[in-house]
Amino acid sequence: MPVPAVSFVAKSGTGKTTLLEQVIRLLKERGYRVGAIKHDAHRFDIDHPGKDSHRLTAAGTDTMLITSQAKLALIKQHADSPPVEELLATYFRDVDIVLTEGFKKSSLPKIELNRRERSEELLCRGEEHDPTLVAVASDMVLQLDVPVLDLNDPPAVADFIEKTFLR
Amino acid sequence: MPVPAVSFVAKSGTGKTTLLEQVIRLLKERGYRVGAIKHDAHRFDIDHPGKDSHRLTAAGTDTMLITSQAKLALIKQHADSPPVEELLATYFRDVDIVLTEGFKKSSLPKIELNRRERSEELLCRGEEHDPTLVAVASDMVLQLDVPVLDLNDPPAVADFIEKTFLR
Repeated sequence: MPVPAVSFVAKSGTGKTTLLEQVIRLLKERGYRVGAIKHDAHRFDIDHPGKDSHRLTAAGTDTMLITSQAKLALIKQHADSPPVEELLATYFRDVDIVLTEGFKKSSLPKIELNRRERSEELLCRGEEHDPTLVAVASDMVLQLDVPVLDLNDPPAVADFIEKTFLR
Repeated sequence: MPVPAVSFVAKSGTGKTTLLEQVIRLLKERGYRVGAIKHDAHRFDIDHPGKDSHRLTAAGTDTMLITSQAKLALIKQHADSPPVEELLATYFRDVDIVLTEGFKKSSLPKIELNRRERSEELLCRGEEHDPTLVAVASDMVLQLDVPVLDLNDPPAVADFIEKTFLR
């Protein structure tokens, strides 16, 4: 069974990461094991000069893993980001749900976040009709073919995810 | 087929990470895909406040993955570090060789590094006879039942690894 996953999509500046943080906290409080995947369009840095782990990646390792009693960290070079479905199958077998940020073109079910002051237009309902959209979280009153949640009510978003993907 | 792996073991202060870096560079120059695993006895930090990835781990994700076109980073919480054999099978299927640091009690083949000014005694030959020892790299002249390499000659260590595990 593939792990349930849902992607938060939005125009930049809508507050995706903030809502994602809040929903993660709520789902953790409810006892679920939660994964997250973030797509970064830029060059991110997570490993820093001066650490042994950085010495090993700087030496050219294709895959570097550091493990302690509490956690592990993996840094893997690749020629292109694998499809999100492959990432889910490889790295998320032991969680209950995965929330992802971005991956607008993937096959994952999506919740679009929409904030009036950022844009009154939706990415997934408009010129294109995205069939993977399962809900919209907005601060506007919208009439849509999918449930409309309150963008400023993280527990309502967590409830929707729990009801849709975790029961 | 499990990926070939060899562990560098030594008393602290012998220069494990430095030799590991040099051997990684040499094997990469020779065209191999190289992985590395470091065991950290302490609490390591790899993810830093202010980054989106840190916001997601701080929110409580059990597994957080960030991916760009060039690389991916994974941070996974666990109750205890998995056996190194499990880490190899899970994360290192696409490299030619994995060099590990530590894991003295694992079943992996080992190269012990030994530096006279740090200690004249070996960890794997002495009171205990470690059957997984495949070579010693030392700056002393030693008579042993396994090959003795020059600790200060990284190409000789890379040659031994290539000959033993990669051909």
